[in-house]
Amino acid sequence: MLSNTTSVSIQFGDCDPAGIVYYPNYFRMFDNATAALLSTGFGMNKRLWLEHYQIAGIPMVDTGAKFFIPSQFGDVIEIRSEITELGRSSFSVRHKVMRGTDLAIEAVEKRVWVKRDANGAIRSAPLPDDVRNRLAG
Amino acid sequence: MLSNTTSVSIQFGDCDPAGIVYYPNYFRMFDNATAALLSTGFGMNKRLWLEHYQIAGIPMVDTGAKFFIPSQFGDVIEIRSEITELGRSSFSVRHKVMRGTDLAIEAVEKRVWVKRDANGAIRSAPLPDDVRNRLAG
Amino acid sequence: MLSNTTSVSIQFGDCDPAGIVYYPNYFRMFDNATAALLSTGFGMNKRLWLEHYQIAGIPMVDTGAKFFIPSQFGDVIEIRSEITELGRSSFSVRHKVMRGTDLAIEAVEKRVWVKRDANGAIRSAPLPDDVRNRLAG
Amino acid sequence: MLSNTTSVSIQFGDCDPAGIVYYPNYFRMFDNATAALLSTGFGMNKRLWLEHYQIAGIPMVDTGAKFFIPSQFGDVIEIRSEITELGRSSFSVRHKVMRGTDLAIEAVEKRVWVKRDANGAIRSAPLPDDVRNRLAG
Repeated sequence: MLSNTTSVSIQFGDCDPAGIVYYPNYFRMFDNATAALLSTGFGMNKRLWLEHYQIAGIPMVDTGAKFFIPSQFGDVIEIRSEITELGRSSFSVRHKVMRGTDLAIEAVEKRVWVKRDANGAIRSAPLPDDVRNRLAG
Repeated sequence: MLSNTTSVSIQFGDCDPAGIVYYPNYFRMFDNATAALLSTGFGMNKRLWLEHYQIAGIPMVDTGAKFFIPSQFGDVIEIRSEITELGRSSFSVRHKVMRGTDLAIEAVEKRVWVKRDANGAIRSAPLPDDVRNRLAG
Repeated sequence: MLSNTTSVSIQFGDCDPAGIVYYPNYFRMFDNATAALLSTGFGMNKRLWLEHYQIAGIPMVDTGAKFFIPSQFGDVIEIRSEITELGRSSFSVRHKVMRGTDLAIEAVEKRVWVKRDANGAIRSAPLPDDVRNRLAG
Repeated sequence: MLSNTTSVSIQFGDCDPAGIVYYPNYFRMFDNATAALLSTGFGMNKRLWLEHYQIAGIPMVDTGAKFFIPSQFGDVIEIRSEITELGRSSFSVRHKVMRGTDLAIEAVEKRVWVKRDANGAIRSAPLPDDVRNRLAG
């Protein structure tokens, strides 16, 4: 399946008074990592693929994360992302956050391919074959 | 001129490794305070007044803040906001952040009233008289 | 078990270009809700209970969230939080996010009670009996 | 004076419902840019220079920004940062945000060099000569 690796340099402002990354910020990093993963597969940036496929987005429906090792500012983490499952109108991603050779966090997410209907409401839509093929890698 | 006061309870996650509010978060609080100020004047929430006046938003064009006293989580700050100037298609706001009777921060901002043109581009638009009157308080 | 309900007024800046809450921001709201839950149980704010129990924090070790209904700015959500499990040095919380009578999100989290050792490293520590009793409600 | 340029790839989650960068996020980018500027001058990352110089941080005392051109996700901005003034225990930075050859934002900030006193309170401290020389570039 499609995979991609990004690295993030942890910043002072990503951290909380305990001096470690404030965990909600990891979900921002994961959202960016998923955008990068699809951008790799689609060969264009997220703004362009939202337009190209005429979708309203890829909202999260289910996510989870296990945190094994904390990180602090000055650390560089590597996020290894890959598609793990393709549904009719959804897909799943797994992110492994590495600190060197150690697994720091493992996160999973399930997202839906959505379009806006005539009333502006968000509705799930089937993954186009082209998308399915690209996410399958 | 129109004025409004809100209070914010500083949270753990608003703070940085030095244990004090990470200053970019104050701008989020100020943006919320300006939304509350206009909501008071317009008698409806921001989503409704964006729709009601058919505007794309009130983007910031110029802001500044002087920080006198830091705050930490557990503190409750009071944000006293008021309109200080009305332009043709812009308005200015001043926020005074109080810690008890002490002035902790003073911030100013200038925002523009914008609409989308036929091409989807954002363009400044004159403040409607109704808006002008309400912001004048 | 201990429970507490907070409400959050969704702000413009909590939302993304799709106009709905950017999901990482929910984790910030959940972190605040857990702080409020414990503050209710301990009868003091988070800064004070970190000091009182001489702990470095309650870092997240495992969290998950299922998103059923999106929210947008102008919405007010209610977060119903409760302790669901007490371990030796950990505890679990469940948050139910309500939009009126509808369940919008269900989130779970497991956190660890940690202290700093002589070298400044973070180590899990047993939940004191007093804490255990208060979290049991 | 010391200068440094960083580039930031604007992410979906940096943007608001108007589709442009939510302006408080720019201050996070500026804080990161100032950290990078000093890290260039000091030859080590922020965590290390906080330790090396035994300071509690470089809190903001005065900042301002003028926004000329909005950016949206998919855009890459370049932040040109430089020291503009050295005080006894403070220094000033100017950030010019470029979109290609266009000036998108100009921001200024004044920060203080602070240490913790015996009671844990934050106090300004004179810039060491070594720091002064490095910031002078």
